[in-house]
Amino acid sequence: MFFEGSEKKLEIVVKLSAGDSLRNIKQPFWNEVVSASGAQILSSIHNSCLSAYLLSESSLFVWDDRIVMITCGETKLIQAVHTFLKRFPKEDILSLIFQRKNEYCSHLQKTNFFSDIESLKSVFSGKSFRFGNTDGHHNFLYHLNKEFAPSPSDYTHELLMYHLGSDAKSIFCQEGQQTSNIREFLKLNKYFSDWKIDDFVFKPYGYSLNAIKGHQYFTIHVTPQEEGSYASFETNLPLWGEHKNYGVQILQAFSPESFDLVSFNDFIPERPFQNSNYPVKCVKEKLNCGYEVQFRQFIKKDTAEESAVLIS
Amino acid sequence: MFFEGSEKKLEIVVKLSAGDSLRNIKQPFWNEVVSASGAQILSSIHNSCLSAYLLSESSLFVWDDRIVMITCGETKLIQAVHTFLKRFPKEDILSLIFQRKNEYCSHLQKTNFFSDIESLKSVFSGKSFRFGNTDGHHNFLYHLNKEFAPSPSDYTHELLMYHLGSDAKSIFCQEGQQTSNIREFLKLNKYFSDWKIDDFVFKPYGYSLNAIKGHQYFTIHVTPQEEGSYASFETNLPLWGEHKNYGVQILQAFSPESFDLVSFNDFIPERPFQNSNYPVKCVKEKLNCGYEVQFRQFIKKDTAEESAVLIS
Repeated sequence: MFFEGSEKKLEIVVKLSAGDSLRNIKQPFWNEVVSASGAQILSSIHNSCLSAYLLSESSLFVWDDRIVMITCGETKLIQAVHTFLKRFPKEDILSLIFQRKNEYCSHLQKTNFFSDIESLKSVFSGKSFRFGNTDGHHNFLYHLNKEFAPSPSDYTHELLMYHLGSDAKSIFCQEGQQTSNIREFLKLNKYFSDWKIDDFVFKPYGYSLNAIKGHQYFTIHVTPQEEGSYASFETNLPLWGEHKNYGVQILQAFSPESFDLVSFNDFIPERPFQNSNYPVKCVKEKLNCGYEVQFRQFIKKDTAEESAVLIS
Repeated sequence: MFFEGSEKKLEIVVKLSAGDSLRNIKQPFWNEVVSASGAQILSSIHNSCLSAYLLSESSLFVWDDRIVMITCGETKLIQAVHTFLKRFPKEDILSLIFQRKNEYCSHLQKTNFFSDIESLKSVFSGKSFRFGNTDGHHNFLYHLNKEFAPSPSDYTHELLMYHLGSDAKSIFCQEGQQTSNIREFLKLNKYFSDWKIDDFVFKPYGYSLNAIKGHQYFTIHVTPQEEGSYASFETNLPLWGEHKNYGVQILQAFSPESFDLVSFNDFIPERPFQNSNYPVKCVKEKLNCGYEVQFRQFIKKDTAEESAVLIS
């Protein structure tokens, strides 16, 4: 059974009255937002800056003034926007960014990027871009046509890994696998021992993890199935400074044949990971909503002859 | 308006009584076969071995004992099989190979490879393979589970070119472009002066060409639109011998960012074209229907930073 790991992602920043916070909103509202997209909240962790909800299809993060929601599978993330807007007038939306990675099997999806943004047209004025060529990996991005000034520490990295190596596949495809084994494989204790972590192993396969510390988060989602194996690592950590080694570590663990790196307001050297994947695409755009976005694709330099995959 | 250039391809070989030939069948039958797929015959050329029909979406070639049909756009090529079978009992089908390249926009297609082969299950026993990774360029192939012995000169090359260079785009996107200018651009007179050629410029854009000489053919199809530019060159010529220079020539003319080469029973050196595209994938499989098939993907070694593509 094919499961689409590639994600849709939504970030919304709202204007709030003094002392107000999205974190004061009780879970029933987030249940409603998440369920509009076709997913469910499974569990949550909280600290003084941030709530992280683990979903049946990926994750929702809630800060005082913003949310980040990531969903995979056949979810309709754009519906979460409309539910969110029931509580917040559109004038209070300071920034909204909706991204959609190219899917492994776009013909199995219930919507596509173009129908998604069509549904926003009656509410917002926005701009849409494609980062990367249509025939290869690419990332669609929609943002409000509205000026916004992100803080200097407001950056994000999305590391999207396709066709995982055999070590990762065997760990994540083992029936009844324990989260403790996976945490060890990902070396989380070495790098993130003082982080609050919430993770879940899905049946028959699949792994999701949310991790938070102060206002910082990272999230890992793994679809290990042979037919379309995929893993993502997304974070607002400055991945190339203090945490650079974890970028190297996670690429070593997943050893993907190909990966994309989408970075907001924090850019990387040409060959950041010193591994055998090399760059085939680099797209950068300064958006008028205040963010500069870079999309890069890397492919493994390995052209050993393979056999075809028998389908039936 | 997006047009899907990526093609589906069908080859059927039939057992015939002595003296019989598919070429004796009058055009109304081919009209019916072509129209079942959702395309139409626009024109045709003939010689003593081969008839070539230019279609509203690609091409049909008819030899004494076999047909090759290639269709693009939103056609349902698999329906042509069912119409063909109205005239030929399935026991007389010696070989049937159905291929489907990954589409730029598979969500816009009326069928997918899996539903296509599902429709053959009630008639044939077959095997299906995927050449190439699902997240990148790939080619699905279905063949009958039946032994077949191709003749030693029975080979095919499919050169599938994605994201064409600016010279090709400007030639093919020029309004009211003449076939003579295109033939000059493709240097057909230099390489194929004694071939019978039939070509057509579509409105607003698009170009198709069939060329035949004896039992040999080549066909060129071009979808030049910025959003998904694509060109294919398919032939039963031994492309790497006498006609190697034309392979180099056509890649120079189209200068694609990425191309795939699918070869049946005739294989190529690792870097056949000495150009700036380099190999990222090589898949080879010996099929039990008598053909050995190689799929290779090449990507242009050019990672200059680009801007994102504004969609709306």
